[in-house]
Amino acid sequence: LTSKLPSVGTTIFTRMSALAAEKGAINLSQGFPDFPPDARLLERASQAILTGNNQYSPMTGLPILREAIANLIARHYDRKVSALDEITVTSGASEAIFDAIAALVHHGDEVILFDPAYDLYEPAVTLAGGICKRVTLAAPEFRPDWQAFSELLTDKTRLVLINTPHNPTGTCWKAEDLESLWQAVASRDIYVLSDEVYEFIHFGESAVSIHKHSELSKRSLVVSSFGKSFHLTGWKVGYIVAPAALTAELRKVHQFVSFCTATPLQQALAEHLLALPEASAGLASFYQRKRDVLRDALANSRFQLLPCEGTYFQLLDYSQISDLDDVAFCEWLVDQAGVAAIPVSVFYQQAPDNQRIIRLCFAKEEGTLLDAAKRLSQL
Amino acid sequence: LTSKLPSVGTTIFTRMSALAAEKGAINLSQGFPDFPPDARLLERASQAILTGNNQYSPMTGLPILREAIANLIARHYDRKVSALDEITVTSGASEAIFDAIAALVHHGDEVILFDPAYDLYEPAVTLAGGICKRVTLAAPEFRPDWQAFSELLTDKTRLVLINTPHNPTGTCWKAEDLESLWQAVASRDIYVLSDEVYEFIHFGESAVSIHKHSELSKRSLVVSSFGKSFHLTGWKVGYIVAPAALTAELRKVHQFVSFCTATPLQQALAEHLLALPEASAGLASFYQRKRDVLRDALANSRFQLLPCEGTYFQLLDYSQISDLDDVAFCEWLVDQAGVAAIPVSVFYQQAPDNQRIIRLCFAKEEGTLLDAAKRLSQL
Ligand SMILES: CSCCC(=O)C(=O)O
Ligand SMILES: CSCCC(=O)C(=O)O
Repeated sequence: LTSKLPSVGTTIFTRMSALAAEKGAINLSQGFPDFPPDARLLERASQAILTGNNQYSPMTGLPILREAIANLIARHYDRKVSALDEITVTSGASEAIFDAIAALVHHGDEVILFDPAYDLYEPAVTLAGGICKRVTLAAPEFRPDWQAFSELLTDKTRLVLINTPHNPTGTCWKAEDLESLWQAVASRDIYVLSDEVYEFIHFGESAVSIHKHSELSKRSLVVSSFGKSFHLTGWKVGYIVAPAALTAELRKVHQFVSFCTATPLQQALAEHLLALPEASAGLASFYQRKRDVLRDALANSRFQLLPCEGTYFQLLDYSQISDLDDVAFCEWLVDQAGVAAIPVSVFYQQAPDNQRIIRLCFAKEEGTLLDAAKRLSQL
Repeated sequence: LTSKLPSVGTTIFTRMSALAAEKGAINLSQGFPDFPPDARLLERASQAILTGNNQYSPMTGLPILREAIANLIARHYDRKVSALDEITVTSGASEAIFDAIAALVHHGDEVILFDPAYDLYEPAVTLAGGICKRVTLAAPEFRPDWQAFSELLTDKTRLVLINTPHNPTGTCWKAEDLESLWQAVASRDIYVLSDEVYEFIHFGESAVSIHKHSELSKRSLVVSSFGKSFHLTGWKVGYIVAPAALTAELRKVHQFVSFCTATPLQQALAEHLLALPEASAGLASFYQRKRDVLRDALANSRFQLLPCEGTYFQLLDYSQISDLDDVAFCEWLVDQAGVAAIPVSVFYQQAPDNQRIIRLCFAKEEGTLLDAAKRLSQL
């Protein structure tokens, strides 16, 4: 049995959440909320199950949900996309990303991504027979180096994978980054897959999005996630927006990977978006408050807080506390402080030497955040 | 934009269901029930959403659901499987099949399947860089020819894909088929992926299953679907059972394809299976009655009924009615009779010349079946 993914083990999220449960630690590792979603949305889902359709939805997603997504994009980004030809509902953002890579990357193609990167990009490229090349983002700013990026471009480059707001660093790209990306790829036959699952969780004035870049959006696939925007990571409903020709290829894969996504959950999300079209507008300030609670409570600790412009993740430098590498430090931390975190090196192919940074998830009740910060401040 | 799946169009299920809706026809094409699932199961799902966990489940599935599946397998097949290491919950049986193929088939590997075959097998193999070889099953019995099978085996054969009860033909394999398969592959390094999503819908005494073949089960992955067993095709919860080493490889793919499946729906299914461990035992007689209603109502029509041993699909030979090929006949049928069916040729790579067979889905209310049969009997 020769593994197709020999270097893949159990994800760090599974391992740290299990360790947290085992040791009774506060779990700030895997990214998910510990508070309930909007009760009205749950009520809609309950009704959809009890009285609605529990059979296959259309392969592309319920029309009413695709319409609601088109409205959301029009409202937030002033971009018109076709619910019929440009939006596909998927079984979480993961499936959307996997499908896009499987649909576009041919055997031997090269894909450029930024290091650190979310853990599913590279295995999806590997399974498609592609090769990843990486541009390193350096702490503490994690800015993309467009010179280094351009040097990686070859005739085999097929896809660029970007992610803003960025997991795990909590940084957001600037409009000039998208412009630099556009300049670099404009004359080439390259697509962009933009993971924007934290699109509504950004703490500056306005978030950068492919949706707002008219040229890039013509050759990009943009991924989002209701799990992140509505505190329902366990529903596994995401979506992907792309021009019709790209969407057609993506759907060819999607129809054979999961075919469709839980119908009553789609129905509930559609009704919720129709009833409350501004539902996601308050998300940034909701999470900004949590971020600030955590940061304030850690201000006098021996951790150094890195900038956090978006996502629900806060990076901490622990070099004043320990010389352990970050994986060992996270294990020590669960034991000694009763707090589970994620070592940032696992997101890198090539982590910088001596980088001592961990990631905390602040999608938690304020009480949870204060408890965790208290424990961490004693180190 | 070079397609990875150039020969894939919109699936026949999407096209025929859309055509049925457009023309107001009775839709016996795509396989899904038109009656509601057990109200107690829906109530459990409603409660799980309102009061339970709406965040990520473990990547492998909720432990309580994997335990319930292990019990189900022990009860029905007298086989002991480990809930921890051998069962994985997936976003429908489709994802299970896709993951298994992606995990096991390397670039250049050969996969043997039987023609006709469910439409997702081949694209999944193609995306993995594998090559499909097909053994033709000949109407009206659709028995596998083991001599022809053996002739396809080469050093590159990695996987055999089987499906019993069989979609679209409604046939079931016999114990001697599994034994012939075992004889053919025993001395080779070959895995078996067994699509048994209709496992509880069989009309003979006892259904053949990999679960009951102790040698084959050691190198097989067996797929099932709560959608089929509990009338909930829109929940997209399936599972796959395989020895630990195969499961480990499968999970490496699964964790990057969808990571996990809707948590509250998993919870509801687990509670339902615990409360009603015999829930699926009555499924065969439930569907046998529907099959018989349809067959009896068509007995005096000009369609010839092919044998139906399992699944919720009935094949009809229409050669006494029309000379059209089956795709054209299905289009004509929607128009002229107001009944949507599936042309069987779409399941073949190489459909036999002049085969005039369509598939009807009888997972419908008896009234629906009688109405459809009445329309068809007028032709
Ligand atoms: C799918 S589990 C990982 C959740 C997540 O996005 C993260 O913690 O980064
Ligand atoms: C996923 S849509 C197809 C449903 C089905 O299994 C069939 O009709 O054969």
